[in-house]
Amino acid sequence: MGGHDKAKRGIPPKSDFSAWYPAIVEIADLVDKRYPIKGMDVWRPYGWKAMKNIDALTHSEMERTGHEEVNFPLLIPEDLLEKENKLVARLKSAREAGVDPSDMRFDEEVEGFKKEVYWVKHAGENELDIPMFLRPTSETAMYTLFPLWIRSHSDLPLKTYQIVNTFRYETKQTRSFIRVREIHFFEAHTAHVDEDAATAQIQEDLEIVDNIMTDLCLPVIVSKRPVWDTFPGAWYTIAIDVIMPNGRTLQVASCHHYRDQWAVAFDMTYEDENGVRKNCHQTTYGMSERLLGAVVGTHGDDHGLIFPPKSAPIQVVIMPVAAHKSEAVMETVNAVSEKLKSSGYRTYLDDRDIRPGQKYYDWEIKGVPLRLEIGPRDIENGTAFAARRTGGKSPISLDEIVSAVSNELSEITDELSSRCNNTMNTMIKPLNSLEQEIEDAIIYEVAFDGNDSDAEILEKTTGLTILGDSMNPYDSPQECVVTGKKTTRRQHLARMY
Amino acid sequence: MGGHDKAKRGIPPKSDFSAWYPAIVEIADLVDKRYPIKGMDVWRPYGWKAMKNIDALTHSEMERTGHEEVNFPLLIPEDLLEKENKLVARLKSAREAGVDPSDMRFDEEVEGFKKEVYWVKHAGENELDIPMFLRPTSETAMYTLFPLWIRSHSDLPLKTYQIVNTFRYETKQTRSFIRVREIHFFEAHTAHVDEDAATAQIQEDLEIVDNIMTDLCLPVIVSKRPVWDTFPGAWYTIAIDVIMPNGRTLQVASCHHYRDQWAVAFDMTYEDENGVRKNCHQTTYGMSERLLGAVVGTHGDDHGLIFPPKSAPIQVVIMPVAAHKSEAVMETVNAVSEKLKSSGYRTYLDDRDIRPGQKYYDWEIKGVPLRLEIGPRDIENGTAFAARRTGGKSPISLDEIVSAVSNELSEITDELSSRCNNTMNTMIKPLNSLEQEIEDAIIYEVAFDGNDSDAEILEKTTGLTILGDSMNPYDSPQECVVTGKKTTRRQHLARMY
Repeated sequence: MGGHDKAKRGIPPKSDFSAWYPAIVEIADLVDKRYPIKGMDVWRPYGWKAMKNIDALTHSEMERTGHEEVNFPLLIPEDLLEKENKLVARLKSAREAGVDPSDMRFDEEVEGFKKEVYWVKHAGENELDIPMFLRPTSETAMYTLFPLWIRSHSDLPLKTYQIVNTFRYETKQTRSFIRVREIHFFEAHTAHVDEDAATAQIQEDLEIVDNIMTDLCLPVIVSKRPVWDTFPGAWYTIAIDVIMPNGRTLQVASCHHYRDQWAVAFDMTYEDENGVRKNCHQTTYGMSERLLGAVVGTHGDDHGLIFPPKSAPIQVVIMPVAAHKSEAVMETVNAVSEKLKSSGYRTYLDDRDIRPGQKYYDWEIKGVPLRLEIGPRDIENGTAFAARRTGGKSPISLDEIVSAVSNELSEITDELSSRCNNTMNTMIKPLNSLEQEIEDAIIYEVAFDGNDSDAEILEKTTGLTILGDSMNPYDSPQECVVTGKKTTRRQHLARMY
Repeated sequence: MGGHDKAKRGIPPKSDFSAWYPAIVEIADLVDKRYPIKGMDVWRPYGWKAMKNIDALTHSEMERTGHEEVNFPLLIPEDLLEKENKLVARLKSAREAGVDPSDMRFDEEVEGFKKEVYWVKHAGENELDIPMFLRPTSETAMYTLFPLWIRSHSDLPLKTYQIVNTFRYETKQTRSFIRVREIHFFEAHTAHVDEDAATAQIQEDLEIVDNIMTDLCLPVIVSKRPVWDTFPGAWYTIAIDVIMPNGRTLQVASCHHYRDQWAVAFDMTYEDENGVRKNCHQTTYGMSERLLGAVVGTHGDDHGLIFPPKSAPIQVVIMPVAAHKSEAVMETVNAVSEKLKSSGYRTYLDDRDIRPGQKYYDWEIKGVPLRLEIGPRDIENGTAFAARRTGGKSPISLDEIVSAVSNELSEITDELSSRCNNTMNTMIKPLNSLEQEIEDAIIYEVAFDGNDSDAEILEKTTGLTILGDSMNPYDSPQECVVTGKKTTRRQHLARMY
């Protein structure tokens, strides 16, 4: 774990979140920001392990739900965008005809997107005939090949995903994991026989999100984004937001229902049971390294990180204490370490020859959920001394060390979840009228059922952004805060990252 | 596994390797070559699983040997090359002084390398102040940060690796896995206190190579490359070549000893126990998706792929036969499948409602090492019928299915290894004189101890390329085939990919 630099370890108090966050990601050895391109950090081993543990949760959910992993090229030739232009044209005429208001901003978005990509126009000493760009996301690359893979209804559903890096020429201020220019990215792309089948996929996606967020002890707000925040080319977008300690929401996942909009542009059709050619209906589901950003930001404290056990690079650190070089102690410590490892736990044996206090301090910073200390007296008592990163210490049985550790870790998980739920409850307040005073670092829930200009009023008055329709509407109708008409639509207002 | 297209399945005979290889990678669903950039294939789920299994072997060896995984940015600003230019200048003057002939070609190589990279000179609508290139390998990126990580001897050895994609603007003909423009790549980079410690690292690397090649049933030729084939900036390069069926050798791995050459250029120093500042000595070790190319090319046959069990995406395919919808059969089939899965085997239950012959055909193409058939009569006998992809069928005990399958798979592994060893032995012949007739598809081993112009004679006369000094020299001195002087230096001559 070497290479610590004591001098750099002054952790700002977490109450000063805008100082704490950028400091802790480096102090805890997650990333190194000294790489000479803004917004492109180097993943250090500890941070990369955390990210891979989160990826492993995703892989496991993908396997459970029958998604297959693919890997598409990074570079996309510009001329493939022609098909997207077709999509733009189609949506434009739909809009003019008034039939499909959901994609109003798609053509502007395609233009906007071109402003955000990195271009490869040269290779070696040649200028390329057709410029290429680094994928910002993979619709264009994938939907060029999907029509070759899909012929009949028996090829559907097609459920694929990949975990790759995507690139965005970010002009806003960059922040590790939260806003970067090379993004560690997950994207699932599916094709289905019809709209209902695609809708069922979105339901499955939300179930997957729920499982992963539970593993990461992150309570979330799930919202159907307003039309103007819908992903380009999507019929609707459901976004998953985490509330960060500074009261800003961080979008960590999103699911998009495309209906057959992209399918038409990319000629993605299939032959049904009766030999009739039909358009596929599609969905996508994206997540990114922001999940790690949310874990870091939400769970850490003044002393450093706190990893939820399922994502922790090291779940249990084991320390021999006092006469730590005694053979009996080392024997027990090694046996415990081996037992836990062979049961699938990620452990680390810290037998460095330094003061215990220094060790505690190191592992606190790194957010290891459970610390086990074993000394001669513990061995006499048949126990190890277990200290939780979330607070609390107690002896646990050496004989039943595996189940005892499993127990400790699940209690730590529960504690983190309940803490975050409590925090979330204190950070969300109702907005009952437009006159209400807006507090700092507070997310507002509000009954709102207005049109675009009502939304503008709401956002301007509060200085906040509408996250969209909660998946959890009011039980009984409330008065819309702008129009006064009755509605069960519960929406959230927040400052977004 | 859907999406098969029967029509496309005409597999050319393997004897026609240049037709067989490009056909089988698509027929077996490893990649799709229809992505519109030459040399950038789409990894399909089956091919990607195979690659990830090979990566898993690498990760496991890296963990065993205490390497830590990092992940560096893809983009490298051109101005970082200044340090490499420093290296060039230093090597040039060393060459002029006659002290270090090993790096003769480094400056030309740096120039050559610029001809092989993809350039990012534009982002959004801006032209970048400093052009960036997509990494062809990561020395420059990593050695910019290593000096910040290494301060004292206690930070050494630094043993890091990453598995990332690298990019090369390849102008030669591209071939899946063998010569591509986006390369799935493994690179280990280490720093040590002195030359000996770096040399020991090279020894460890060769041990790792040996383990991985054994798992992949690939016999190899390990050679110290001639000076003119040494990696730019390296003191020496050890390369690992596999013999492909057409008699061409494929370099699948290489290890480079850098001494302190890069360390000087990048100011990579440390303070030793006595407070003295010293240069690090470094090594790198690279492998790539060529490992999969070697597996495909070496083990396949006229009927399709044959995966060595450790890399197989599916190790065991299980089929209910005859009255395959009978409850008893399905119960047994499911139980066997679960048992094998929970013992860590990658299995697939094929209960499709098609002729068994069609199923055999499918799994033969995909190279699944072991097929288990279970019908009512087998259940009566307490057996499953096991058919090996390498040939041979026999009943195995249902009661001891896990150990029986383990046994079958290790016999398949042994069979593949022994086949390849035999093939290799028939493909390597001694070259006893320059007059000897050169046969097609043959690798020659030769006693050679000449200088550069002797090497040129040897290569010109035979029309072959010198692979370099075998790590396994002759036991007793032989006559050098060009100079006639006695030498134990065993070298190989081949056509290289």
